[in-house]
Amino acid sequence: MMTRDVVWLVVLAAQTSALWWLWRARRQEDKAHEDLELLGTLKQRAAELENEVARKEGMRVEERRGRVSAEKELRRVMDEKLDTSNGHYVQALGHVHSCFKSCLGTPRQGLFAPSTRGLVTFHRNVSPDTLIGLEAFTHLWIVFVFHKNTNGKNARAHQGLRSDSHRYTFKAKIAPPKLKERVGIFSTRSPHRPNPIGITLAKIESVDCATRTVHLSGLDLVDGTPVLDIKPYVPAYDAVLDARAASWVSLDLSPTINQVRWTSPDTRAVLECCAETSRLYRGDAAALQAAIEEVLQVDVRSKEQTARRQRDNNTLVLDCVRVSYRLVEQVASVIDVHHIEAIPSHL
Amino acid sequence: MMTRDVVWLVVLAAQTSALWWLWRARRQEDKAHEDLELLGTLKQRAAELENEVARKEGMRVEERRGRVSAEKELRRVMDEKLDTSNGHYVQALGHVHSCFKSCLGTPRQGLFAPSTRGLVTFHRNVSPDTLIGLEAFTHLWIVFVFHKNTNGKNARAHQGLRSDSHRYTFKAKIAPPKLKERVGIFSTRSPHRPNPIGITLAKIESVDCATRTVHLSGLDLVDGTPVLDIKPYVPAYDAVLDARAASWVSLDLSPTINQVRWTSPDTRAVLECCAETSRLYRGDAAALQAAIEEVLQVDVRSKEQTARRQRDNNTLVLDCVRVSYRLVEQVASVIDVHHIEAIPSHL
Repeated sequence: MMTRDVVWLVVLAAQTSALWWLWRARRQEDKAHEDLELLGTLKQRAAELENEVARKEGMRVEERRGRVSAEKELRRVMDEKLDTSNGHYVQALGHVHSCFKSCLGTPRQGLFAPSTRGLVTFHRNVSPDTLIGLEAFTHLWIVFVFHKNTNGKNARAHQGLRSDSHRYTFKAKIAPPKLKERVGIFSTRSPHRPNPIGITLAKIESVDCATRTVHLSGLDLVDGTPVLDIKPYVPAYDAVLDARAASWVSLDLSPTINQVRWTSPDTRAVLECCAETSRLYRGDAAALQAAIEEVLQVDVRSKEQTARRQRDNNTLVLDCVRVSYRLVEQVASVIDVHHIEAIPSHL
Repeated sequence: MMTRDVVWLVVLAAQTSALWWLWRARRQEDKAHEDLELLGTLKQRAAELENEVARKEGMRVEERRGRVSAEKELRRVMDEKLDTSNGHYVQALGHVHSCFKSCLGTPRQGLFAPSTRGLVTFHRNVSPDTLIGLEAFTHLWIVFVFHKNTNGKNARAHQGLRSDSHRYTFKAKIAPPKLKERVGIFSTRSPHRPNPIGITLAKIESVDCATRTVHLSGLDLVDGTPVLDIKPYVPAYDAVLDARAASWVSLDLSPTINQVRWTSPDTRAVLECCAETSRLYRGDAAALQAAIEEVLQVDVRSKEQTARRQRDNNTLVLDCVRVSYRLVEQVASVIDVHHIEAIPSHL
C-alpha cells in the first residue's frame, strides 16, 4: 500500500511539475496571445505600409517624369534662348500705312514716285515726345522689316545662322532685276537677306506728335511693314557725292514706260470716289492719279516678268484703286479703274 | 483502499485533462512562438517600411519641388519666347574690326575722318559669294548694333516694349551734343534708341571674298561692333540733293580743333613702330598719323565734355596708339604717343 502511494505521489509530482512547467508556458502564451493580437495589427499595418510605399513610389516616379520632361523642355527652350542671346531681339515700334497693299507693284525707290503716300504710326508705348523736332528735317530713313518675304530658304536663314554648323543657309547670290548674272546679296538691296532688315528713304510731309504719326510721300513700303526705327536724313552725312554704284544699277530696263494713257471713260469719277474714302488721298483725286502714273512708270520687274506683262493684262492695286492696264511698247494703257474696299490696315 | 484509489484517479484525471488542455495550449503556443518570431521580423519590417515611406515621401517632395521650379522657369522662358515672337530676331553676320577701341573718341561721321580704317569680317556661316560684285561700289551702308550702349533705361527698353503696359520705357528726348535743348530721339541719330540699330556709311577700300572681309575707311564704328547687314550705297537712291536737316545739325561746336601740333619728339618713331604691328595700318605710319589728326579734329563732344577737355590732359586710343593731348583754343597739342598692346579683337 505504501509503495502504491509512492507511485501515485511520483506520478502526481511528475504531473505537478509538468503542470508547473505548462502553467509557466501558459503565462508566456498569454503574453504571446497579446503579441498575437499585435501581430494581426502589425500585419495589417505592414500590408498598408507596403501599399503606401508602392503608392509613394508611383507618385515619385510620376513627379520625376514630370520634372525630367519639364527640364528637358526647359533646356530645349533655354538652348534656343541662349542662341537668341547671341543675337538681338528687335521689336516693331510702329507700322507703315501705305498706298501699296502688296509687294508686286510697289516701286523700288519711293522718291522716284513722289506722289505715293503713306504714314508711319508708332505704337502707344512710344512717347509722342520722340517725334519732337523731326519736322525740321525734310527726309527720313525708315529702318524696317521685310515682313512679306516668303522665300523659305531665307526665312529659315536664322535657324542656320543660329546653329553651329558652318553650312551656308541662305542664298549667297541673286540676280537683280536689272542684271542677267547673279551677284552676292550684299552687293544688292534685295529684300531676301540673312537679316530681313531694310532701310529706305521717304519725304516727311508732316509730323503729328499727338497721334505719333509721320505723314510721308515718296514711299516704297508695303502696307503693314513693321518699323524698327526712323532716323533723320542728314545730307551732310548721307549724301556722298563722289560715290559710285555698280554700272548695272543705273541700267535701264527696256521697255521703260514713259507714257500712261487713260482709256477708261469714267476714270476721273472713279478716282474722285476713291479719294473720297481714302485715308491717304482724301479729296485729292489728282494726287491719286499722279501716284498711279508714277508707279506705272517706275515699276521695274525682271525680264521675264516684263515679257509676261507685255502679253497680258496687268493689275496694280494702289490705295483703294484697282487699276487694269496693258503695256504696248513704252505706253501703259489703263483699261479700267475700280474702287475696292480698303484692305484692313495695321492701324 | 478503493476510495483512495478513486481519489487519486480523480486527481490524476483532473491533472491529465489539465495537462491535455495545457498541452493543446502549448501546441498553440508553439505556433504563437513561431508567430512571435514572425512578429519580430514584421516589427523590424514595419519599421523599415515606415522609414521607406518617409524616404519616398521626401524624394517625392524633392522631385515635385524640382518639377514645379522647372515648370515655372519653363513658363517664364516660354513667355519671354512668346513675346520674342512678336518681335524679330536678328543675328550678327560678322563683326567690325576697327581702329577705335572705345566709344569715347570715335568720330560721329567716319567719312569726315577719311584716314580711319577698319574692316568687316563675316562669320564662317556666311558664304564668300555674298560679297561678289561689291567692289563695283565705292561706299556701303553698314547696319549694325549699338552694342556698347550702357544706358540702363534704354537697355531695358525692350522689356517695356514687350510688355502690354503702355508706359514709355525709354527716354523720349535727348540733348544732342550740338544742341542745348532736348529733341525727340527720332529726330536724332543718338545710339540710345528703342531698337539699338544704327546705320552708317563707310568707304570700300577692297573686298576679299576668300576671307569674307571688306576693308573700309572713313569708319565711325567701335571695334567689335556686330554687323547685321551691309548694303551698297547707291547715290541715285541715297543722295537726296534737295534734302534739308534741322539747323542745329550743322551748328559748329566751338572750339573746333583746326590744328594739331606734335610736341613729342619721338612721335614718328613710335608711330612707325605702331604701324609695324598694326593690322589696319601696317607699314603706313603716315596714314596712322593722319587718322589721329583727323579724329582729333572731328571729335565732337557735349559742351560739358568740351569744357572738361579744355582743362585736363586728354587721351585718345586709336588702333594701337595711345595719344595724350591738350586742347588750347583751337589747337590740339599731342604731348605723348605710346604703343599699346593690341586689345584682343573679335576676329
